[in-house]
Amino acid sequence: MKSAALVVIGSELVDPARRDANGPFAKEGLAALGIPVALLARVEDRVESIGEVLQAALSRCDLVITSGGLGPTGDDVTREAAAALLGVGVHEDPRWLGILEERLTTRGRPLTELGRRQAHVVDGGEALDNGAGLACGCWIRHAGKHLILLPGVPREFQDILNAKVFPRLGSLFPDQPTVRVLRAVAAGLPEVEAEETLRPWYGKPGVDVSILPSLGVLRIGFTLTSPPLEKLEHTESAVRVALSEGLRKHLVSLDGTSLERRVGELLLERGWTLASAESCTGGLLGQKVVSVPGASRYYLGGITAYGNEAKQCLLGVPGGLLERHGAVSEETALAMVRGARARFNASCALSTTGVAGPDGGTSDKPVGTVWIACGTPEGEWTRKISFPLDRESVMEMSAHTALFLLWSKLRAEPSP
Amino acid sequence: MKSAALVVIGSELVDPARRDANGPFAKEGLAALGIPVALLARVEDRVESIGEVLQAALSRCDLVITSGGLGPTGDDVTREAAAALLGVGVHEDPRWLGILEERLTTRGRPLTELGRRQAHVVDGGEALDNGAGLACGCWIRHAGKHLILLPGVPREFQDILNAKVFPRLGSLFPDQPTVRVLRAVAAGLPEVEAEETLRPWYGKPGVDVSILPSLGVLRIGFTLTSPPLEKLEHTESAVRVALSEGLRKHLVSLDGTSLERRVGELLLERGWTLASAESCTGGLLGQKVVSVPGASRYYLGGITAYGNEAKQCLLGVPGGLLERHGAVSEETALAMVRGARARFNASCALSTTGVAGPDGGTSDKPVGTVWIACGTPEGEWTRKISFPLDRESVMEMSAHTALFLLWSKLRAEPSP
Repeated sequence: MKSAALVVIGSELVDPARRDANGPFAKEGLAALGIPVALLARVEDRVESIGEVLQAALSRCDLVITSGGLGPTGDDVTREAAAALLGVGVHEDPRWLGILEERLTTRGRPLTELGRRQAHVVDGGEALDNGAGLACGCWIRHAGKHLILLPGVPREFQDILNAKVFPRLGSLFPDQPTVRVLRAVAAGLPEVEAEETLRPWYGKPGVDVSILPSLGVLRIGFTLTSPPLEKLEHTESAVRVALSEGLRKHLVSLDGTSLERRVGELLLERGWTLASAESCTGGLLGQKVVSVPGASRYYLGGITAYGNEAKQCLLGVPGGLLERHGAVSEETALAMVRGARARFNASCALSTTGVAGPDGGTSDKPVGTVWIACGTPEGEWTRKISFPLDRESVMEMSAHTALFLLWSKLRAEPSP
Repeated sequence: MKSAALVVIGSELVDPARRDANGPFAKEGLAALGIPVALLARVEDRVESIGEVLQAALSRCDLVITSGGLGPTGDDVTREAAAALLGVGVHEDPRWLGILEERLTTRGRPLTELGRRQAHVVDGGEALDNGAGLACGCWIRHAGKHLILLPGVPREFQDILNAKVFPRLGSLFPDQPTVRVLRAVAAGLPEVEAEETLRPWYGKPGVDVSILPSLGVLRIGFTLTSPPLEKLEHTESAVRVALSEGLRKHLVSLDGTSLERRVGELLLERGWTLASAESCTGGLLGQKVVSVPGASRYYLGGITAYGNEAKQCLLGVPGGLLERHGAVSEETALAMVRGARARFNASCALSTTGVAGPDGGTSDKPVGTVWIACGTPEGEWTRKISFPLDRESVMEMSAHTALFLLWSKLRAEPSP
């Protein structure tokens, strides 16, 4: 299968904290043509550095699209880098130079020597009209591959892609396979256990498997690219069956639906409402619940009782119980669930109470010890987790474990 | 000057729309050591593709750090790709295998054949202890350059960098220019307004400015690299003065301290406590407050009153007031603050009530309309925001605005 690389050029853009506006646009357009992106790079504006990256990109991918470095200034060296890599020169494109002069005249500005560089193209390449700016793009065919140089300004990048590139790629890459993407979500099991189910699929031709673990939740992706269509459909149903049978009571969805959204759907099916009582997660659990649009149809609210006093006054946890068992205990977690159900008059409730750290741990209850409780009209359940990691991870794991516990109970058939 | 490349490995990460959590962390740490990043790449998890990118990176840069592809599963092939590129094999590190077995035993889990791969290192490379996970990192010296393979899970990536990589890079790259990194946090102003203050610094030699905006909070970074030391110190104080004067009542910190942490510090200084009353943010505000270790010293808890009934019963918002003004109103926000202060017996409280969307908007109160209120022993204040974006952004902006409002009042001198 043919694939593409996207290369962003500009020293100021070699910053992982900075968003690249052009990449998502290009990726979507290519996906619609069945062309996956196999490499993303951002590189400083030095001729040698750009050359190295373009070489790596061209050796793995059939289509390389660059953005940036086509302007008039001294640090715009993309054309020169491409030309050096291919062992050719650059020349002025007379047609685009004419358009450039005309556009500048309209704006009452002169064409400077530096400005002329915007009409330069790599020898053997074709100038691509820029409907939104002054620098032309450049399409170079080389050894059966395609290298396309585009300006970095988003509206210019997008204009040339839409007008000059996407319409022609379809016929140049006609044999792209039909692609099926299957996204599953699993919860409450470690990555290695999911592996047992996924392993038979690794390395199979036309099957690409990925796992993205995030503290109690696994996002599993299958990209299937095996024409013909019947075979693709057959593989897809085989994957579905394997996931359903292998992950069983951990498989939240086969269509990418998140754990919190699935919990909401199941609550709505039963006509039940939910409240939360949080201690160590400080609101994170509620925040996950309301991240689903329309959560107000089943989520009534929550009480974060960070101190013992709040646990007593606002959730009705008996003072004696707190004294006997401590705030981080199964008993307190259950009392919190009962308090939340009563205060909000909710069908179901979830609670968390634990030591998120970095301080507050004891030998008895070290950092990462969290009790979770769940109450529904059908019963009450608890879970203890021991997850000695950083504060943020402990909170995230606790919230996911609570949602998983409720989901497990909701997915079971209702009692007769 | 020596430079570094950061390579992210994983097909699912070759998505320009997806944030890379590891890159910014690595870039900052390297900047503090005076090592600029010249190349960023994200590549699919195929041995050949990874090899091509590593080759390009090693030919231009002296230090290449990869993240991802060290796990136990079939799509984890970073070690194999590095070994193939260097023409060597991989072997099991007996010391790390021992640690791995011990950690799994503690968790009551067996070491599987696949799991053993997490103790593999490239021949000639050194295993790097992972304080936060199961896969060891690997440091390979090759032709005077350094290739460091790290796991992709952010806390593991960061743990190994902090414990095993950064401390040793200083002596390996001793001739890097002296660098000063200055990190400021500003809140409650749009990026373009901060630009006014920052613009004079753009393009100055030896000064690198970055802004990372995140919905109501701006993180501003200055990296200064102009020896000699006196000149550096002079530039640094000039930047400090410029930021203090230019950003004035929006400048939260000049040392990177976050808005929520600064709020906590100011509350502790006054001996005040805080409670929260949330509607549309559903717990996010409380979660931000407790993300600061030790928040239990001033945060008592919060009530998320998602429905009107909860607003009445749990926060004591009068039913008549809700009828007259609606849940999304200045009056309701104030009543929620009063309710939270009373219920938790807290010195201060913050509240949010609004339309997070995507549904529920009206012509009068469109999606993105949020009322924020703040109460302290010194007074009560409100803010309205109109921020017609996606649900998550509306919530984030609301939580930040609430914290900014409280911070503004706390930083003012106490009344006499």
